[in-house]
Amino acid sequence: MGRTSDARKNILSAARSLIAERGYSALGVAEICKAAGVPKGSFYYFFESKEALALAVVDEHWAAQRRDWARVLGGDEEPLARLRRLFAETEAGQRAAQDACGTVSGCLFGNLTLELSNQAETVRHRLQEIFDEQVDMVEAVVVEARERAEVTVPDSRAAARAVVAQLEGQVMFAKLYNSPQWLSPLWDNCLAMLGATTPR
Amino acid sequence: MGRTSDARKNILSAARSLIAERGYSALGVAEICKAAGVPKGSFYYFFESKEALALAVVDEHWAAQRRDWARVLGGDEEPLARLRRLFAETEAGQRAAQDACGTVSGCLFGNLTLELSNQAETVRHRLQEIFDEQVDMVEAVVVEARERAEVTVPDSRAAARAVVAQLEGQVMFAKLYNSPQWLSPLWDNCLAMLGATTPR
Repeated sequence: MGRTSDARKNILSAARSLIAERGYSALGVAEICKAAGVPKGSFYYFFESKEALALAVVDEHWAAQRRDWARVLGGDEEPLARLRRLFAETEAGQRAAQDACGTVSGCLFGNLTLELSNQAETVRHRLQEIFDEQVDMVEAVVVEARERAEVTVPDSRAAARAVVAQLEGQVMFAKLYNSPQWLSPLWDNCLAMLGATTPR
Repeated sequence: MGRTSDARKNILSAARSLIAERGYSALGVAEICKAAGVPKGSFYYFFESKEALALAVVDEHWAAQRRDWARVLGGDEEPLARLRRLFAETEAGQRAAQDACGTVSGCLFGNLTLELSNQAETVRHRLQEIFDEQVDMVEAVVVEARERAEVTVPDSRAAARAVVAQLEGQVMFAKLYNSPQWLSPLWDNCLAMLGATTPR
């Protein structure tokens, strides 16, 4: 099965694709191992359970996405321009996934929230932490924009939460209609929700 | 197994609860029949497949929810007051479900959108129709409010879509944090998105 580190990486990568395609519950360990090209017997050498694998997939995906979000939201542009770039990159990411596999796969965290949060408390807890981190990152930008009098929203935390909720809701529609362009109104919706002081 | 009509009704009702609790993929026909108190052999007398059952559950749920939405959004109050009532009833509904079964189950249509739309085209298509109807109903209220100069939003369709997306996103958080109070900010977010002309 090649080097040990490759086998673990292959299982993670196969699980990531299969979960995006078909969800978590529909998958069996045997199928994941087959897609990864790894003997089924070795699965439990790397992961205690299918749930432990789901957590590892979530952690790996968030590590990559957090880097992207930090790069975009912590960049040199004006605060609202950074938020706009986040939406544009999200739309581009969903478009790239659609080009690669034919369907918009949506947000891994949103998908697993709706599928799993009432069944696996460890997954629920980890997803809460991730969405809290997303809200933290958006809130920092909202606070900056408010200091520059570019937005008027009174409660920066609630506003950041609403922006992330709007993003998840529109990503859901992009998946439902299999069309990334459902993400395009995000920017205008977000400006309105934040009470932007000038049109952009 | 009692009267035929009861058996079908019991299967639908058991499937509705089990899907809300654990999703669609995790369920087997045998388990649904057991919960419904109906012999497994009779399942295919009523439903061609598990997917046909999912469609019937979706249709039944939307028939009930559409009546509620029509009552609230087509009522005698001022247009924005009706929208506010829709959010309040949604929050109350999630709270009642949580009281009954211990967890916020979220939106059946949102749950199935993320779990199934890339696997079952008939379900995807039906869910598209339902969300389109929801957007139609919200849009009619937005148009009325705009005629009364109570909101300023330029594109009533895009605004109604954003309101439904915001609802779905916040319902997702209510499920993730198992707390219906995540729905409380909906009203303020919605007023801001619609460009309401006076605070309410």
